[in-house]
Amino acid sequence: MKKIAVFTSGGDAPGMNACIRAVVRTAIFHGLEVYGITYGYDGMISGNIKRMHSHSVSNIIQRGGTILKSARSEEFRTKEGREKAYQQLKSLGIDGIVAIGGDGTFTGAKVFYEEYGIPTIGCPGTIDNDIYGTDYTIGFDTAVNTALEAIDKIRDTAAAHDRIFFIEVMGRDSGYIAVECGIGGGAEFVMVPETETDLKKVVKSLKNLRKSKSSSIIVVAEGDEEGNADLIMEKVKVKINDEDKEFKVTTLGHIQRGGNPTARDRVLASRCGMAAVEGLLNGEANCMAGVVNGDVAYTSFADCIGKTKPLKGDHLRLIEILSI
Amino acid sequence: MKKIAVFTSGGDAPGMNACIRAVVRTAIFHGLEVYGITYGYDGMISGNIKRMHSHSVSNIIQRGGTILKSARSEEFRTKEGREKAYQQLKSLGIDGIVAIGGDGTFTGAKVFYEEYGIPTIGCPGTIDNDIYGTDYTIGFDTAVNTALEAIDKIRDTAAAHDRIFFIEVMGRDSGYIAVECGIGGGAEFVMVPETETDLKKVVKSLKNLRKSKSSSIIVVAEGDEEGNADLIMEKVKVKINDEDKEFKVTTLGHIQRGGNPTARDRVLASRCGMAAVEGLLNGEANCMAGVVNGDVAYTSFADCIGKTKPLKGDHLRLIEILSI
Amino acid sequence: MKKIAVFTSGGDAPGMNACIRAVVRTAIFHGLEVYGITYGYDGMISGNIKRMHSHSVSNIIQRGGTILKSARSEEFRTKEGREKAYQQLKSLGIDGIVAIGGDGTFTGAKVFYEEYGIPTIGCPGTIDNDIYGTDYTIGFDTAVNTALEAIDKIRDTAAAHDRIFFIEVMGRDSGYIAVECGIGGGAEFVMVPETETDLKKVVKSLKNLRKSKSSSIIVVAEGDEEGNADLIMEKVKVKINDEDKEFKVTTLGHIQRGGNPTARDRVLASRCGMAAVEGLLNGEANCMAGVVNGDVAYTSFADCIGKTKPLKGDHLRLIEILSI
Amino acid sequence: MKKIAVFTSGGDAPGMNACIRAVVRTAIFHGLEVYGITYGYDGMISGNIKRMHSHSVSNIIQRGGTILKSARSEEFRTKEGREKAYQQLKSLGIDGIVAIGGDGTFTGAKVFYEEYGIPTIGCPGTIDNDIYGTDYTIGFDTAVNTALEAIDKIRDTAAAHDRIFFIEVMGRDSGYIAVECGIGGGAEFVMVPETETDLKKVVKSLKNLRKSKSSSIIVVAEGDEEGNADLIMEKVKVKINDEDKEFKVTTLGHIQRGGNPTARDRVLASRCGMAAVEGLLNGEANCMAGVVNGDVAYTSFADCIGKTKPLKGDHLRLIEILSI
Repeated sequence: MKKIAVFTSGGDAPGMNACIRAVVRTAIFHGLEVYGITYGYDGMISGNIKRMHSHSVSNIIQRGGTILKSARSEEFRTKEGREKAYQQLKSLGIDGIVAIGGDGTFTGAKVFYEEYGIPTIGCPGTIDNDIYGTDYTIGFDTAVNTALEAIDKIRDTAAAHDRIFFIEVMGRDSGYIAVECGIGGGAEFVMVPETETDLKKVVKSLKNLRKSKSSSIIVVAEGDEEGNADLIMEKVKVKINDEDKEFKVTTLGHIQRGGNPTARDRVLASRCGMAAVEGLLNGEANCMAGVVNGDVAYTSFADCIGKTKPLKGDHLRLIEILSI
Repeated sequence: MKKIAVFTSGGDAPGMNACIRAVVRTAIFHGLEVYGITYGYDGMISGNIKRMHSHSVSNIIQRGGTILKSARSEEFRTKEGREKAYQQLKSLGIDGIVAIGGDGTFTGAKVFYEEYGIPTIGCPGTIDNDIYGTDYTIGFDTAVNTALEAIDKIRDTAAAHDRIFFIEVMGRDSGYIAVECGIGGGAEFVMVPETETDLKKVVKSLKNLRKSKSSSIIVVAEGDEEGNADLIMEKVKVKINDEDKEFKVTTLGHIQRGGNPTARDRVLASRCGMAAVEGLLNGEANCMAGVVNGDVAYTSFADCIGKTKPLKGDHLRLIEILSI
Repeated sequence: MKKIAVFTSGGDAPGMNACIRAVVRTAIFHGLEVYGITYGYDGMISGNIKRMHSHSVSNIIQRGGTILKSARSEEFRTKEGREKAYQQLKSLGIDGIVAIGGDGTFTGAKVFYEEYGIPTIGCPGTIDNDIYGTDYTIGFDTAVNTALEAIDKIRDTAAAHDRIFFIEVMGRDSGYIAVECGIGGGAEFVMVPETETDLKKVVKSLKNLRKSKSSSIIVVAEGDEEGNADLIMEKVKVKINDEDKEFKVTTLGHIQRGGNPTARDRVLASRCGMAAVEGLLNGEANCMAGVVNGDVAYTSFADCIGKTKPLKGDHLRLIEILSI
Repeated sequence: MKKIAVFTSGGDAPGMNACIRAVVRTAIFHGLEVYGITYGYDGMISGNIKRMHSHSVSNIIQRGGTILKSARSEEFRTKEGREKAYQQLKSLGIDGIVAIGGDGTFTGAKVFYEEYGIPTIGCPGTIDNDIYGTDYTIGFDTAVNTALEAIDKIRDTAAAHDRIFFIEVMGRDSGYIAVECGIGGGAEFVMVPETETDLKKVVKSLKNLRKSKSSSIIVVAEGDEEGNADLIMEKVKVKINDEDKEFKVTTLGHIQRGGNPTARDRVLASRCGMAAVEGLLNGEANCMAGVVNGDVAYTSFADCIGKTKPLKGDHLRLIEILSI
């Protein structure tokens, strides 16, 4: 292996830059040439590919976003698109790929590898933490801390006015962010897609809570089956039916995708990036480099995409017990 | 003067606790007894009033929210409500009042003073900065910095995906927060209630900008006459009519009300709180203690409520020039 | 088991309050009475012990420090001291103990348990992360992020002036903090007690680095065998012997012990606190409740104290490779 | 005027980049060519000067440090050095200069202007806030907030252990940072160069305070006439002479120079940068563009350097009164 390329794809996540840096520097350390593809698979197709050097990644480890930009590519879903991409890589002599992203990114990478055989390793870059084969994904810790800081601020104002706040966090299919910032934020309830939300119980508990506590925080994952935070608030409000009580909604939105990555995300991103390059050099391919039980581990793209990582059981109990 | 009471009212603002602390300790320093009224005018009516000591305000200077809580009071708008409030204060021998809040708070304080004559001084506690008689209001600096940190995070993800972001900040009647975090956040446009928003110009500029810049940030004050950020985004999107471009909205909401106050807000709150108590001791009343041109100044409630504080002219020019 | 007591001891760590909250609420959830001992073992001896309720721990999950205070106790090292402590607990009917702290705390708890037999479980509360039997200790993640934010700030000024900065972080016997914030901060070198520091190599590398990089960051654990950051800087400065180069030292100090805990520390603290109480109810004793490979695990005090937890091997390689 | 140059000099300050951005974009807006000089006066002498465009300053408004780097220049103190600098500027046709820095920077700029006549305007970039002719200097607000966040963290651990903490902040000749973060941090004492520090009074008060408060924070400006924080702590410790009390010192150091600038600093930097360029276009020279009483004002270099800006009198009273 002599030349590798790296790109980011899908929703951006804090720590992607730290991962790019690790890929570039590990590659150079081992004598490889390294290229950066801008705009993900779209850039691969259009040949938006440039040589990277050690200084290309100076002073980016602490930055949110991705210097290689990201995009969704419809064209790469077609055979013709992938053929163009292959020709671009072939013309540059690229014989190894590191793909930083989530499920969608790995699905594309798997198909492309199986069609054209350029060894490819993924790094788990997504705030959602919903990828099998790694304890945590790059960006998750930062997103949770960003959401938690917002909850801390909202609790100040909730307490000052005795309000009930519904806070919507990211997570279309998974409740990881909601659960961790719910525990950390001392939320009374957390509503996630993985478990059935029992609004009757919530209403009953809120009525009871109000005797001992003046304000309440409810964290809602955007993908909860009862609806988004606005909808759920309206349902609860109607059932509580108390004019003295104020109900408010805050949807945290895209602030969860940005910001300087936390220490944990920078370390994870660095480890995955180094492991991806060294994995390629050791003959690994068609897999993701993650961290499992604290150690680097390679998991086939097939498993990463196909298997699900359940929420910790004791996490849900924690919320129930600690909000009394 | 022997006994004074302090309360917070209206929307809470970071720094209110620092102001309460200053009132309590300055009062004790000068040999006064000091009482805290919980839940604003409602608590005054119901007699929710407790003696405060130096240690009652220990370790609160850095906390958002208000330990005295806040509420809107319909009852205080009635003559009967105010009579009850007066009887409560009279029974405790309260002969001075410090009211921390905004326009609504001062309106109530002015009426109450004119009816019952208990000397009252206000402190400007509101994130909106829309009070005449003080350069800045307590909480404004924190709210702007909170909004700015959110914009910094959003810019990361906006740049990664080449998106146009509409960010809604607080400000129903005033654009102070929008303008300061727009300048600080390097926004392309800021839309505020004080000036007419020219959407045609925005659309034209965005089309031009897109040649040189890949992403754009537009800050919208919630009270802009063209609507909230969702509405404005839809209007602009329709006019730009470009399928390749992604438009996103983030409404920052109540995170702007909470959080640890900044240094500036803690200092301002401390100065206003001390000045309010010392003003009472010096015979001032029916006025607000603010900071004008860097020095403490007392402004009559009538002026605080009746006069408007215009946006700085050079601030609007700054945004136009610096976003090229 | 009917009544348990909880205390914090040793150096304070962010997340201790979240752990106290979890202990108190889990105990109440399971029908136990719970008591808080102030000032650690000293408070146990002097009977500084109070009943705690659910609201006693409201609104503390996000606060640094410990509401139960901490202290070192010489008296508890004596048989007489421990006898007094036992009599205090006996008189209140305490039949279970949760001890939050580090090595020293657990050493005391082990002796006390073996002498008097009150079931005791520990929770790992220390920023140093040097306790066997848990992946991470409560406070470590916060301390690393605090140090990292400081390094990010220092890198700004180091780059502006082309300076070489030696940054000293906490860690008398262990290099965990140094290694993680070294990786996250993009440090050129990290010096830790666990490995021999080769100053000749550092000097050589710094001379080489200076051709490609203008500024450098070196992270020093306070317990490095070559001395503290001041000493090491002087040694390096003499050997580099270049008048054009500025060498600076920053010792981060006690800021690493305080601050709002991160999400990770709050979740870890909550899990350990709940596991400690439920462990007591399930007959566990003389052990610590930690989290190993992501799941709650109980490890005997003997192992926690006696065994060492080595630094991750790939972490040290990361620093070497990624700083090229 | 057709071509202007901009540089930063002296100690770096957060917000310098925002100021550079404002200078560059305002110049371009008005049809000027603009050049950036790297490494301050040294770069002027050696001709380290490059054309800047609008995109040269994209995405820097939020960054600490200075993209133009900074340095002290011995050579510029000589007539020969300044002659070289002039020839460099002349050869490029530079006919206007914006100098961002503090006293030393303006002293050099004044001499250079008087010798060679290239119109020059300064912007006040220094964390110390000790420049006459502007309410605040660029970087001061950020430095104060950084110091304050550190004090907040230290208070957590001080309270947990009942310790007395001496915290040293920057300020060799001025106590602005110490005073503002002392008020904001609820310090018991603040020691600054401008006023005589009465250690006897401090010792007496600390002994009294210890009856009602368990921990204390004392903020020391590095230039206090009684010495740095280490020295003062030792003097106080000896006089208090209480073995039960722990005294600790934290020297915040260079973290105060870095970090993302606050909203206030970004707005101030933007205003000063725009005013400097527009001042040059309007025929101003040999002066600094600052903000006085909220409005842009030009003050001659002679006054900026020669006059002193005293500490606010009520600030010192605040600390005395509010720490009871």
